[in-house]
Amino acid sequence: MSKELSTREENYSKWYNDIVTKADLADNSAVRGCMVIKPYGYAIWEKMQQALDKMFKDTGHVNAYFPLFIPKSFLSKEAAHIEGFAKECAVVTHYRLKNDPDGKGVIVDPDAKLEEELIVRPTSETIIWNTYRDWIQSYRDLPLLINQWANVVRWEMRTRLFLRTAEFLWQEGHTAHATAEEAVAETEKMLEVYSTFAEEFMAIPVIKGVKTASERFAGAVETYCIEAMMQDGKALQAGTSHFLGQNFAKAFEVKFAGKDGKLDFVWATSWGVSTRLMGALIMTHSDDKGLVLPPKLAPFQVVIVPIYRSDEEYATVCDAGRAIKKDLERFGVSVKLDDRDTHKPGFKFNEHEFRGVPLRIAIGPRDIANGTVEVARRDTFEKEVLQIQDLSTKVIHLLEQIQSNLYNRALTYRDERTYRADSWDEFLKLLDMGGFIYAHWDGTPETEQKIKEQTKATIRCIPLNNPKEDGKCILTGNASTQRVLFARAY
Amino acid sequence: MSKELSTREENYSKWYNDIVTKADLADNSAVRGCMVIKPYGYAIWEKMQQALDKMFKDTGHVNAYFPLFIPKSFLSKEAAHIEGFAKECAVVTHYRLKNDPDGKGVIVDPDAKLEEELIVRPTSETIIWNTYRDWIQSYRDLPLLINQWANVVRWEMRTRLFLRTAEFLWQEGHTAHATAEEAVAETEKMLEVYSTFAEEFMAIPVIKGVKTASERFAGAVETYCIEAMMQDGKALQAGTSHFLGQNFAKAFEVKFAGKDGKLDFVWATSWGVSTRLMGALIMTHSDDKGLVLPPKLAPFQVVIVPIYRSDEEYATVCDAGRAIKKDLERFGVSVKLDDRDTHKPGFKFNEHEFRGVPLRIAIGPRDIANGTVEVARRDTFEKEVLQIQDLSTKVIHLLEQIQSNLYNRALTYRDERTYRADSWDEFLKLLDMGGFIYAHWDGTPETEQKIKEQTKATIRCIPLNNPKEDGKCILTGNASTQRVLFARAY
Repeated sequence: MSKELSTREENYSKWYNDIVTKADLADNSAVRGCMVIKPYGYAIWEKMQQALDKMFKDTGHVNAYFPLFIPKSFLSKEAAHIEGFAKECAVVTHYRLKNDPDGKGVIVDPDAKLEEELIVRPTSETIIWNTYRDWIQSYRDLPLLINQWANVVRWEMRTRLFLRTAEFLWQEGHTAHATAEEAVAETEKMLEVYSTFAEEFMAIPVIKGVKTASERFAGAVETYCIEAMMQDGKALQAGTSHFLGQNFAKAFEVKFAGKDGKLDFVWATSWGVSTRLMGALIMTHSDDKGLVLPPKLAPFQVVIVPIYRSDEEYATVCDAGRAIKKDLERFGVSVKLDDRDTHKPGFKFNEHEFRGVPLRIAIGPRDIANGTVEVARRDTFEKEVLQIQDLSTKVIHLLEQIQSNLYNRALTYRDERTYRADSWDEFLKLLDMGGFIYAHWDGTPETEQKIKEQTKATIRCIPLNNPKEDGKCILTGNASTQRVLFARAY
Repeated sequence: MSKELSTREENYSKWYNDIVTKADLADNSAVRGCMVIKPYGYAIWEKMQQALDKMFKDTGHVNAYFPLFIPKSFLSKEAAHIEGFAKECAVVTHYRLKNDPDGKGVIVDPDAKLEEELIVRPTSETIIWNTYRDWIQSYRDLPLLINQWANVVRWEMRTRLFLRTAEFLWQEGHTAHATAEEAVAETEKMLEVYSTFAEEFMAIPVIKGVKTASERFAGAVETYCIEAMMQDGKALQAGTSHFLGQNFAKAFEVKFAGKDGKLDFVWATSWGVSTRLMGALIMTHSDDKGLVLPPKLAPFQVVIVPIYRSDEEYATVCDAGRAIKKDLERFGVSVKLDDRDTHKPGFKFNEHEFRGVPLRIAIGPRDIANGTVEVARRDTFEKEVLQIQDLSTKVIHLLEQIQSNLYNRALTYRDERTYRADSWDEFLKLLDMGGFIYAHWDGTPETEQKIKEQTKATIRCIPLNNPKEDGKCILTGNASTQRVLFARAY
């Protein structure tokens, strides 16, 4: 199985695609740009959802559900918003099919044309703020802290599994506040939730920052983001949190009466992460042997593979395997006993390695005699023989080690590829090596655009708590007060 | 709050709608036929999802995700299927908007017309079986036991919150098997899962049966269903499980090699329940005071309302409330402490009653002095004074009692309105009283259709394990071997 995998060196893009498809995470579908998320991939997404959903609820948010369709006129109400999304909208124009009168199958019924076209939501600010108008009258109705788990559609021309698909799954938080300060605090709080999730669950170190004006979400006053480095040195935006000011409240006339009875427009935020995180997860940790998963997001943290020759041995080792499974599960470890008698241990070893199961336990008759098992780590390939007696404690410890090792490995990888450039030549040279570059920029959208055109590098973010430093823009030589983070990106 | 509620007697339909909207379960949206599921309603749906998802996984199923869009040609491949869904399809024809050259806002870009129209999934058999073709080669790939949680769209002309909406949320299981027997067993197993869920979690007694040919799912060989009685005596189909034979395998050419190497078409099932269950839940248990929720699906099982006059009393009773909350939560009870100091206890009592919280605990200074609290049941309005000392045990017991009381009450209600009719006159008379009627039917679709046209009653199902009994069709007088279940239905 692993033989068919391209290496990162040979063809990074193909390596990624091979892992996604051959580790049964997702597949392209018959519908252009839409993917099928396969059960193993979906199980990882479910783990992400559970962890995030708990973090949202722990910070006071509740879930709700808003319509899939957005009337065209709604999308048009916020000028920057429609400008940003118009080019990638899937449009519903009719509501019925009928038999072709010429007998050539089924056609769209021309009599069933909608008066107003409906857009399949690319994001839900407009339909949600139209609803909030009915829900918000006074300061007592605020803050409104709502999240939605949903599918959205953005008609992308060039798609890649998980990273950029026409339909994707995500969550979108939409909150309403009485003051700008509160809304900004919420925006920053959710960025913090995302960065905690990325680092503690996904084992991906991220840089928190704000986007430049030209990279902001369409309709936002400020876009905060977390940026991660993939193994080809490229950046991947792993989550965004937007301070929307009063833009959507004004577009949808959502006002509230303050304590003093005065009416004012409501302040808004929105924030989201999507199945794109699956792409980040795969590209951060996986190796030339296949997928590598952090234990906190692995559908199975441990796989037990029985080693046997005869039917009697099969029965004995499977019994021992079941006992170990039961014991581990008591401690909250998720375990799969691979007792298929249709496949050899070597095949199973390869398969589970390819699918990124963090720990493999092999158990044969000799192990049982010795009261031991062989435990192999997916991240380091280290093997050790452990006593069955206190296996649970050791497995839990090993899983924690794997989780932190993956994070530290990714952090080291990123830090080793993070540079400072002080001249244009240096910038170009470093960029071709791949990685993050801190460099001075004169703060103008024109320069940002020129750099992008000439190098394909973009300003990923202006990091939070960025140290002030006088310098000169790498392209124009104009004065600059801080370095910003450049990289080529997904 | 409860004053604004219509009674069931006055206007059943308005009573239902009042509860849905005023108990903050759902609202109509600006998009025709699409609803907004509000946080309190969504929290109940999440409880349903969790319970069902666990039951699906416990019976060997895994989750996956398939595209929202279905190419028009796919939907057309199974003749009965397209016949059934053509009239309610939302059709995507374009993938881009642009600025109107006349400066009149945003229009659909005529240059961005799709080569083939895409249908927003009304159900996913076609896109899934097109995918299964790649996933199934041999008997070793079977059974394939997959479920999907998703939104679907059926362009209904007359919609009602939860009961019939253009977009709704559901789960759809799609399984593939090597033999007809296995597929039928799966269909029956999932019907059993649904009936267990309805009875044990929703506290709704259901009748299991099979649909007549004319009421079958479009593309099914046999449709199994569970039918529940609402408080107006009407039936509500609460879940369906379909044996699809080889219809979809043939339409999408999905074959597998058996152990003998021979190729055969794969056997299929599909099964689903939707947010319609919310409607069933509301209409089964609620009363003229508002929503009534079974404890197993209530977002909060217990609400604690502090009674106080002064700030000191407020602090003391809230402390006591927090201690009780903590204690109950240790036992897995979900509790809300309503410590808002902006509302009076009477207002809170009404609000929580209206929202169906199963148990209310009131605690004031005198209670604290006595070491007691006042506990009120939502289902029976009974109140009792209980010692704080062993409150948890008693609360858990009370919640169990409420759960079973709601079930028994609904069962009694249904059984009292379930009749046998032996003549057409009797049938008509009983039908107008509202309820379920067991009557003889000659087994022909023509008679079934005539009865429907004349009375609006449909055959809800032919119950499983239906006793054989010779009789005469209530309409035609022709011979019949069994009674079937008639009712007017949602």
